Amino acid sequence: MSDAVQSVTIVEVGPRDGFQSVGPFIPTPHKIALIGRLHAAGLRRMETTSFVSPSALPQMADAAEIVAATDRLAGLDAQVLVPTARHAERAFAAGATHLSAVLSVSERHNMGNVRRTPMESVADYAQMVAMMPAGAAMRLNLATAFDCPHVGRIGADAVLALLDPLVAATADVEIALCDTTGRADPAQVRALFAAARDRFPEVRGWAFHGHDTYGLGAANVLAAWDVGIRVFDASVAGLGGCPFAPGATGNVATEDLVWMFDHMGVASGIDLDRLVDAARAVAELPGAQIGGRVRDALAARARKAAA
Amino acid sequence: MSDAVQSVTIVEVGPRDGFQSVGPFIPTPHKIALIGRLHAAGLRRMETTSFVSPSALPQMADAAEIVAATDRLAGLDAQVLVPTARHAERAFAAGATHLSAVLSVSERHNMGNVRRTPMESVADYAQMVAMMPAGAAMRLNLATAFDCPHVGRIGADAVLALLDPLVAATADVEIALCDTTGRADPAQVRALFAAARDRFPEVRGWAFHGHDTYGLGAANVLAAWDVGIRVFDASVAGLGGCPFAPGATGNVATEDLVWMFDHMGVASGIDLDRLVDAARAVAELPGAQIGGRVRDALAARARKAAA
Repeated sequence: MSDAVQSVTIVEVGPRDGFQSVGPFIPTPHKIALIGRLHAAGLRRMETTSFVSPSALPQMADAAEIVAATDRLAGLDAQVLVPTARHAERAFAAGATHLSAVLSVSERHNMGNVRRTPMESVADYAQMVAMMPAGAAMRLNLATAFDCPHVGRIGADAVLALLDPLVAATADVEIALCDTTGRADPAQVRALFAAARDRFPEVRGWAFHGHDTYGLGAANVLAAWDVGIRVFDASVAGLGGCPFAPGATGNVATEDLVWMFDHMGVASGIDLDRLVDAARAVAELPGAQIGGRVRDALAARARKAAA
Repeated sequence: MSDAVQSVTIVEVGPRDGFQSVGPFIPTPHKIALIGRLHAAGLRRMETTSFVSPSALPQMADAAEIVAATDRLAGLDAQVLVPTARHAERAFAAGATHLSAVLSVSERHNMGNVRRTPMESVADYAQMVAMMPAGAAMRLNLATAFDCPHVGRIGADAVLALLDPLVAATADVEIALCDTTGRADPAQVRALFAAARDRFPEVRGWAFHGHDTYGLGAANVLAAWDVGIRVFDASVAGLGGCPFAPGATGNVATEDLVWMFDHMGVASGIDLDRLVDAARAVAELPGAQIGGRVRDALAARARKAAA
């Protein structure tokens, strides 16, 4: 390893992947305040909301307001999730400049999400790419890239085959391979990222989106880091899950990743103390399903130090 | 990687590191039954008890009975923890054939455990080595090898310096570098194991003993695995902690490690389903502080599949 300080980018997805898993509606000003606290902790990339059907996900009905509010946060690169081109139109109309398209490698999972086959979603994605305003950026979340809640393990071949037409649509994209169920293992993570980067060197960037459902959140991040991945999704307080993926509670907690990278000497630009304070506020949201360990470990340590 | 199936050895430390953290006395027959269930799940190495002062750790007062009972389990390599040569004598007298000596790199931590400096414990350890009956085996648990609850991060130099006289006492030993506080990080784990193996190639074996307090249990195991470590301590249901290390609750859960290695295609010889059943029984012990995620994730999945 070189002596130069290495750095990592953590994309906070709590306001989207996390909030959408919370049943009771979180008042919009409270969402905006929490996003502000995360920004103040140093997070400069966030998935702040999603443009989806408000009847399917009422929690995200205030997406346009969130975009307008987060636009004012200095230096924040806010991406918004959109499942189809129709919703991408709404996002652009609201002023979004960074989309997160999402589609699923697993046909059954994609059908459950958007009632389309993956190839139908690829065509829709190409349409989104074509409608992007100048200066807008694209992130592609490839769900069930390792495992599907319905059909189990997903082979690398299926992922690479689906990436062919996706990368043909645009290589100017950051592609997140998503472990939707948390059932990926470190060997699989390493192998898939290595294969994907090898086959698609023209892609602008790669990211890993992991869940901690089976306790491998940090291990899988480490595995991806080892093969050169430098962008990781995480959710403050481990808030989250996928409403369409049974048992898929628990994104890897942002504060756990920051803790790990801090200790490895890798710069994230995030202030752990402020982040943990924000995480404690998130953990108190009514209906929150939370995870992560650093929050409690630090609290226990503080209690014992005070005793 | 070669096509040959790789294998890993998991040392179940729940009956020692786990049980000793439980306040209410666990009736001896219940302990023996739980050890039997772990054995039936395929665990062939276990730290079954410790010979310590019964007034300091009443939970371990039945050590001799545990040794007698576990002696009857086919193929089980049962190691028993001893903090001093005086207790090693008691262990040998009870029929133990595999000792786990323990001493701490951190002077303050070692003083707290046994009221000796680390170098005094080294002398005591040499005495233990000298009194070993023919055919007996030694494991050395080097506590606070990465971080100490009192003084923080421990440098590799301090560990290597302490290993000098320890390895001089005997190289026929398995040395476990222990992350007592759970504050080690993967880069530190890799660097210390690489340095230790490089400096002491004559040592019979190395092991990693990690805690999941800060969510890095599995990641640190992966890091050690990557540099060739093949023996890992873990505690069923994540039961455990160190009574002398504030905030150090949570050994890495055995079932989480078995899950990870199963998915990586690494053979452990352990039946995950039977292990999870045993873990659920352990989790119900009155006063148990537990951890791990696989147990709950599998339960959630089963509930959803049945719904």
